[in-house]
Amino acid sequence: MTQTVDRPTRETAPGDPTARAERWFADLEAALRARDVAAATACFGTASFWRDLVAFSWNLHTVEGRDGVAGLLEANLDRTDPTGFALEEPATEDGGVITAWFVFETGVGRGRGLVRLREEDGALVAWTFLTTLYELKGHEEPRGTRRPPGAEHGATKSRRTWSEQRQAEAESLGSTTQPYVLVIGGGQGGIALGARLRQLGVPSLVIDKHPRPGDQWRGRYKSLCLHDPVWYDHLPYLKFPDNWPVFAPKDKVADWLEFYTSVMEVPYWSSTTASSASYSPETGTWTVEVEREGQPLTLTPTQVVLATGMSGKPNVPTLPGQDVFRGDQHHSSAHPGPDAYAGKKVVVIGSNNSAFDICGALWEHDADVTMVQRSSTHIVKSASLMEHGLGDLYSERALAAGVTTEKADLIFASLPYRIMHEFQIPAYEKMAEVDKDFYDRLEAAGFDHDWGDDGSGLFMKYLRRGSGYYIDVGSAELVADGQVKLAHGQVDHLTEDSVVLADGTELPADLVVYATGYGSMNGWAADLISPEVADTVGKVWGLGSDTTKDPGPWEGEQRNMWKPTQQENLWFHGGNLHQSRHYSLYLALQLKARFEGIPTPVHALAPVHHTS
Amino acid sequence: MTQTVDRPTRETAPGDPTARAERWFADLEAALRARDVAAATACFGTASFWRDLVAFSWNLHTVEGRDGVAGLLEANLDRTDPTGFALEEPATEDGGVITAWFVFETGVGRGRGLVRLREEDGALVAWTFLTTLYELKGHEEPRGTRRPPGAEHGATKSRRTWSEQRQAEAESLGSTTQPYVLVIGGGQGGIALGARLRQLGVPSLVIDKHPRPGDQWRGRYKSLCLHDPVWYDHLPYLKFPDNWPVFAPKDKVADWLEFYTSVMEVPYWSSTTASSASYSPETGTWTVEVEREGQPLTLTPTQVVLATGMSGKPNVPTLPGQDVFRGDQHHSSAHPGPDAYAGKKVVVIGSNNSAFDICGALWEHDADVTMVQRSSTHIVKSASLMEHGLGDLYSERALAAGVTTEKADLIFASLPYRIMHEFQIPAYEKMAEVDKDFYDRLEAAGFDHDWGDDGSGLFMKYLRRGSGYYIDVGSAELVADGQVKLAHGQVDHLTEDSVVLADGTELPADLVVYATGYGSMNGWAADLISPEVADTVGKVWGLGSDTTKDPGPWEGEQRNMWKPTQQENLWFHGGNLHQSRHYSLYLALQLKARFEGIPTPVHALAPVHHTS
Repeated sequence: MTQTVDRPTRETAPGDPTARAERWFADLEAALRARDVAAATACFGTASFWRDLVAFSWNLHTVEGRDGVAGLLEANLDRTDPTGFALEEPATEDGGVITAWFVFETGVGRGRGLVRLREEDGALVAWTFLTTLYELKGHEEPRGTRRPPGAEHGATKSRRTWSEQRQAEAESLGSTTQPYVLVIGGGQGGIALGARLRQLGVPSLVIDKHPRPGDQWRGRYKSLCLHDPVWYDHLPYLKFPDNWPVFAPKDKVADWLEFYTSVMEVPYWSSTTASSASYSPETGTWTVEVEREGQPLTLTPTQVVLATGMSGKPNVPTLPGQDVFRGDQHHSSAHPGPDAYAGKKVVVIGSNNSAFDICGALWEHDADVTMVQRSSTHIVKSASLMEHGLGDLYSERALAAGVTTEKADLIFASLPYRIMHEFQIPAYEKMAEVDKDFYDRLEAAGFDHDWGDDGSGLFMKYLRRGSGYYIDVGSAELVADGQVKLAHGQVDHLTEDSVVLADGTELPADLVVYATGYGSMNGWAADLISPEVADTVGKVWGLGSDTTKDPGPWEGEQRNMWKPTQQENLWFHGGNLHQSRHYSLYLALQLKARFEGIPTPVHALAPVHHTS
Repeated sequence: MTQTVDRPTRETAPGDPTARAERWFADLEAALRARDVAAATACFGTASFWRDLVAFSWNLHTVEGRDGVAGLLEANLDRTDPTGFALEEPATEDGGVITAWFVFETGVGRGRGLVRLREEDGALVAWTFLTTLYELKGHEEPRGTRRPPGAEHGATKSRRTWSEQRQAEAESLGSTTQPYVLVIGGGQGGIALGARLRQLGVPSLVIDKHPRPGDQWRGRYKSLCLHDPVWYDHLPYLKFPDNWPVFAPKDKVADWLEFYTSVMEVPYWSSTTASSASYSPETGTWTVEVEREGQPLTLTPTQVVLATGMSGKPNVPTLPGQDVFRGDQHHSSAHPGPDAYAGKKVVVIGSNNSAFDICGALWEHDADVTMVQRSSTHIVKSASLMEHGLGDLYSERALAAGVTTEKADLIFASLPYRIMHEFQIPAYEKMAEVDKDFYDRLEAAGFDHDWGDDGSGLFMKYLRRGSGYYIDVGSAELVADGQVKLAHGQVDHLTEDSVVLADGTELPADLVVYATGYGSMNGWAADLISPEVADTVGKVWGLGSDTTKDPGPWEGEQRNMWKPTQQENLWFHGGNLHQSRHYSLYLALQLKARFEGIPTPVHALAPVHHTS
């Protein structure tokens, strides 16, 4: 399977990048049509990565090298029946790498991808190859030329209006009709997925404990603004307008989410909590006990998606003395903002995003603030991250260069996680250089700063562990110049009016904020379903990179996110706005296929290496 | 001024359309820079039209022929100081006419336009020339690369969050601060203008009598859907998503308007009515008495915009017997829908859009319906209107051909009203041909159908008189096949249980719906300000086409719409969604310039020929 087959058309040949890419695809397609795995495998380099999002594998799965390619094809080629590979636009060449956008079809759907080709032993071969499914044949979304007519022309006795139909649907849902998919958690993730499922005609319901969509943001500390810029944050189908702020205030985001839920006609129950869920392998359905505005109710969906937030379940440390402490104490997710704490002494435990934002807002409102750093943190200045980290993909500059948000998502997805850090390291080296003065001052103030285990910076930390960083929008300067005081170490206990650290340092406190982060998403499964199912599914998030808080072995994709898990019909969805937007497509297509009875044999269902 | 100056570069010359258009602009700009009106005028044909939207005239104004061009330039050239004419994209040629998109600058702003060039006596000259202002220098909108940062990076004592700022602004507006512009009427027109003014930083307030934005649509008959398609209906800054229905149901439109008002941060007072307004020429401000949620309040804006709807003030006929009629009777604008009228006898007075929609919905709910046709009506089938009337500009087909909504608006605006009917007639001749069977059946059923005085169809009727047509979404078939009965003539009187026509025909009725249309918008000015001011301003809407309900003389632009009126600081805004979107830009720029103290000498303020 791993032999290389020299084929004259793939040898270094004259021609522009487009012609060369087209010849490569002609070879690939001929091999695939002939079901000649060896020939197809020879189109890939010895060091190569094929990332498939649903199209070939009914999974999110990355294979490496010719062995990996051969394995994927042997298991799936016949069933997938890929054809019609064609460039979407002229290919480009840069530094010996030809990059080409392409489309293709499978037996059941249509796909899009991005390939990077380079020469190896005189032949043009794939280095990275991304294949993604974007629609199922016969189940195309009603958009653009397929958009619904709205008015039904003609005269029909007793027809119902749009609002009457909507009302009838709302009244029957959960009583005479059951959702095929129950999405638990109605933040940006649940809403984005709900919109896609609605669009695909999959009967679904999104439930959330808060009174209104967007309350997930409204309830957070009042100075919070998005740390990611607008171009990165769009939801599916409806982009923020071009007067939207770069870093939107949380209440504005909240209002948008509420409106979006309504405009997209997402079936959404507010003030609803799920108390338990159990799965019957016999019937293939879940029994979920919920309480909607105080009324108990049983739902029997086929699929359950936990979209309660990859940073949804607060880690609140248990510390001696919490019961005797006389001041206020709360987790960062419950922090009301600084208004009540002017002139008060505040100790913030933690030194990541929330800790910095909260310290900054408290300082602005004249509180006396001490940050307790327990371990090292990675900080990048927001403007530098925009310029050197995201700007090529998500910015006005990117848009002007033709890199739409949709293209940026695919470009990003086309970088295999295995080598993504290699693309990241130079950007952070650049930031270290341009902001050297800032880092020098921060370290001079005693702040324990890091760049990630391998210097790959913020985004890899996010993908690996979902923590350990701060995107500086100003508060780091307060630490650097001592306006926010800094202490180090673990908390030993609390007294009536102070926090005592392990080294004996006593920090007087009227308020303690635990900016101590969040647990793994399978904690939600343990609470809702059972500890056994949580263990069956295992740890959620992370790549198996064998770096801090992301133990190996290497898994190739984010654990359990947006793809089948070891628990039948249980799914995890979430992440930042970028991920909620992009990966909700693949999750929705997997659910749609199951709803329609399209066979979805999962290739290489990921084994579980860690239970939490 | 009208002499023709032969200039060799404008003679028929080799070269592609782009090169020829560029030479034409080079000539024009050279003449304008030299302040050589004669030379500039010679760039125009003997039969030519220059339509200027604010850029040169601080007015919406069309001049005709070389005399007209010379007049416009003599009065405004020096002040306007136009420069920098440049093609935006390659010009195209079709049937001897070169069409070119261009940009230019004036002393105070930036503009965009569309020119059609053709040969005359061996020289390339302008046939139609559209110039529009799109922004004022130094007052560019905060969009795209200029979008607001949102988060304010850095740490600042006691800064206020976005929601705190919004709240403070809302609390001060109308008490410690006054709006510069008061927009009366918060339907699509008021909201679109409010969004633009907000974006331009002009302190404004939109007031509306209804409890919520969108109620203007919610309150109408329940079967109502937009008769114009989605591509025609976008609001500024935020387009409907591409899953939006072609003809959106009224409640969906209503929800969108409500959300849009919030997202665009339009200062909007619901449940607010204006009872009187008076202008002080000494102070240059209005005194407007309003009642907000029952509380009286005085506002003192500088500018007042009436956006109460070009079809806002119902015409309810006064008829003998209305006091003795025992059934229900109401204007179409107050019709609640058909639910209560199954099995009832209904007489609908009128035969235009609302009459047909209401008849159709009543028939669908098993009412016994008679339509009373008082005068001839023009009907086009919705699909035919889409295909032959709008499709080149507003459709997926248009989008695929690169005609965005913004471009379509300018293409439409570039057709001078004087000759617009010539462009319209062929489309309606085509519809008469393809739908011949439909029209034959309609006329066989006794329906009095027309195509407009000159056969120019629906859109010209809309622009000239704003009435006299129906876009058929199905109800016309009910009349054609007799399911909805048809009667003819004026109503003479009502009895206890019937409508009696002038010819003695008695129509039994449990319900009478007056689908009798709406008055001129200056009726609102009479009510709010005074009959004298209403007469000073004169008739609103219409072109002076000397056709039915649009008396001459020719005025060249829509009377009083979106431009200065004979009453200082009083403006009219409205129209369909297309017009609300497009013309709100020019009205907003006129208001912004006045707010900033930029001189705005109005060229050719339109005289008043009709008081209503």
